[in-house]
Amino acid sequence: MRMTELIHKKREGGALSAEELHFLIENYTNGTIPDYQMSAFAMAVYFRGMTEEETVILTQEMMQSGDTVDLSLFGKLSADKHSTGGVGDKTTLIVAPIVATLGGKVAKMSGRGLGHTGGTVDKLESIPGFRTELSPEDFLRQVQEVGVAVIGQTGNLTPADKKLYALRDVTDTVDSLPLIASSIMSKKLAAGSQNIVLDVKVGSGAFLTKEEDARALAEQMVSIGKACGRNIRALLTNMDIPLGQNIGNALEVMEAVNVLRGRGCEDLTEVCVALATQLVSLVQNIPAQEAKTMVEDCIHSGKAFETMKKWVSAQGGNAQALEDFTLLPQASCTVEVLAPHSGYLTAMDTRMVGEASVFLGAGRSKKDDPIDYGAGIVLQKKTGDYAEKGECLAVLYCNDSAFVPNAQRRFLEAITWGDTPNAKSPLIFGIVG
Amino acid sequence: MRMTELIHKKREGGALSAEELHFLIENYTNGTIPDYQMSAFAMAVYFRGMTEEETVILTQEMMQSGDTVDLSLFGKLSADKHSTGGVGDKTTLIVAPIVATLGGKVAKMSGRGLGHTGGTVDKLESIPGFRTELSPEDFLRQVQEVGVAVIGQTGNLTPADKKLYALRDVTDTVDSLPLIASSIMSKKLAAGSQNIVLDVKVGSGAFLTKEEDARALAEQMVSIGKACGRNIRALLTNMDIPLGQNIGNALEVMEAVNVLRGRGCEDLTEVCVALATQLVSLVQNIPAQEAKTMVEDCIHSGKAFETMKKWVSAQGGNAQALEDFTLLPQASCTVEVLAPHSGYLTAMDTRMVGEASVFLGAGRSKKDDPIDYGAGIVLQKKTGDYAEKGECLAVLYCNDSAFVPNAQRRFLEAITWGDTPNAKSPLIFGIVG
Repeated sequence: MRMTELIHKKREGGALSAEELHFLIENYTNGTIPDYQMSAFAMAVYFRGMTEEETVILTQEMMQSGDTVDLSLFGKLSADKHSTGGVGDKTTLIVAPIVATLGGKVAKMSGRGLGHTGGTVDKLESIPGFRTELSPEDFLRQVQEVGVAVIGQTGNLTPADKKLYALRDVTDTVDSLPLIASSIMSKKLAAGSQNIVLDVKVGSGAFLTKEEDARALAEQMVSIGKACGRNIRALLTNMDIPLGQNIGNALEVMEAVNVLRGRGCEDLTEVCVALATQLVSLVQNIPAQEAKTMVEDCIHSGKAFETMKKWVSAQGGNAQALEDFTLLPQASCTVEVLAPHSGYLTAMDTRMVGEASVFLGAGRSKKDDPIDYGAGIVLQKKTGDYAEKGECLAVLYCNDSAFVPNAQRRFLEAITWGDTPNAKSPLIFGIVG
Repeated sequence: MRMTELIHKKREGGALSAEELHFLIENYTNGTIPDYQMSAFAMAVYFRGMTEEETVILTQEMMQSGDTVDLSLFGKLSADKHSTGGVGDKTTLIVAPIVATLGGKVAKMSGRGLGHTGGTVDKLESIPGFRTELSPEDFLRQVQEVGVAVIGQTGNLTPADKKLYALRDVTDTVDSLPLIASSIMSKKLAAGSQNIVLDVKVGSGAFLTKEEDARALAEQMVSIGKACGRNIRALLTNMDIPLGQNIGNALEVMEAVNVLRGRGCEDLTEVCVALATQLVSLVQNIPAQEAKTMVEDCIHSGKAFETMKKWVSAQGGNAQALEDFTLLPQASCTVEVLAPHSGYLTAMDTRMVGEASVFLGAGRSKKDDPIDYGAGIVLQKKTGDYAEKGECLAVLYCNDSAFVPNAQRRFLEAITWGDTPNAKSPLIFGIVG
């Protein structure tokens, strides 16, 4: 078998066999197939697509290219969620303890933030003492005892995907649905959970801006997961406005606590309840309506918040900081962004809002940039709201006031103004699976 | 400017600007743009094509990526021909001395054979003593004095094309018309001739098997040449059967001599007269009909053959061998291939015939394989002919009889048999320019 023949087959619109996909991934991972052939192949896939069968096999091959996590000791209770990434997305911090409280075993690996989107690992590390590096034994023991553990990417999981993703990033072959679906799903499958809920973001702050693309991606990922024997559903959620009010690591921890204490803002609470409901419904094999009641009860009873505190303590974090926010990293400088004129906020470019928070120090432009855990933005007005000239739109938090002008400018650029409010778009576009 | 943006622009079907194409070729040649980005770009070009303007600029950028040959001392008389490659194609050996006899200055660089197609340099080197490496000064002096010199690729001509072609070869991005056209034309333009005739082969022995593709390529190349101020025409010629009867280096020299002595076979003579006619018409700026008469006269008068002998002597070759073929490399073993049954030869897969001659030692499978100059095939029957069972179809020439069975098998595989002769297809499909 020769790589040029595989490129040719795909270029001509053919479908690769299981043997061919095995050859492709095995030899790309071990370096026998050079990057320049793989990038030509990826571009051919961009134009020709892949069949559902090809995508499933590609995913399995990438999953099997490295280590996989064995969660069999949790039987049918292992649970994972995945978000395709957004601005102000602190749902894992809320959904994980809810699901753990209701019997799920959340053994989760998360990433760090890059560019305009944040990462769960950074958010957790803003809690003083919180460690996201656990040994495999400690990780599993904590999940067994507390019901939840979240760590950074560890071990040699899906090396084929790591290598291919880095290549796609520099060869303009990222936005191919089968390649996106197989990349995400190979990691989720390798992470080992039996029950998976995907949060596929749609809108200006997500990497997919059109609902139809997001739905197609969700359908591909759900069908891959099912083909591999997992229980899986996907929610399509709105990322045309940031989720909740707080953007920035410690600020998002505070907001997560507020949701778990029953005083979070409406949109964030609704999305988290929906995600937790689907995951509990899968884990317990019960109808969603029943799961939803359980989810709401466990927030109102305070049980989910108790689980969060246990979780934070178990990973070395100061759980007291969840009740006394002054123990979390602070910002020495807060600046209000005032409305330059009166009117309705008819749209917010969520990517630009995320960028404004990166300018304040809350995120990374490059992979090894340091993060200011106290920095970020708290929104006072969101899409659909009316603001009088001079009214506060948002509060910027940072520890270096030199960052403010750029952040303020980008934040104001993100807003579209109008004379009338536009129709409210839904928070959740649908459920797949 | 970033390479990912150029890939993206092409992937989305856009046209690159002159600045962008300059950036692309300059940085690919100097190694700043890695192969894996260039191959993704080439695959995007395969799917999206290039505008005529883009193709012209790409060609010029590749031409200017290295040295160019200055033939200005020959004024408007410099002449070059290029064949897209075929089996049994010895036209340069015939056309060059004709054009030189009629006032053209043929300063030509040629390649070696690879795979099923032969190369002019190998054919010339089968003449004892013939040297294809001349210093630039000797090369130009010989063209001035004899009217013709043919050497191997020399100097650092079109390094961008060399690098890109090698990459396309292993990433299945060879058969993109704008990339083929710019590759060929960048070399032709760098080689410096004012007048250029292209012989674009069509059929089973050529790399383009469909007339419409060959015509599109011819049109692109002619339009590039004209945009760069050259006089240029292209002939579309039939490579569905080998050209002439002889395949193999010394065998083809003999056949070329026969044509120049007025006793060559019809098809080869017709194609050579057509090519020489167009080139003389361009060089002398006269109508083709007038040029044709001159070409035929200079064959019949023996003047063209005299030029060939002078040319061979000037490059160190034994010109006597052109009149006494026993002085050319011989084959110790000749084997007749007999018709396995009676019938009409309705088709010959010319590529397979070429491969049979490679099996005999006449060509190279890999770049550095040795060549047996005496080896090859002389066809006794060609497409359209009738053969009785047991009649001789061809004679195989080689110096190692162990090669015969494979070559014989491949040769017979190349033939399609029928009960009735099929309509004769034309030798020349048309002229572009």
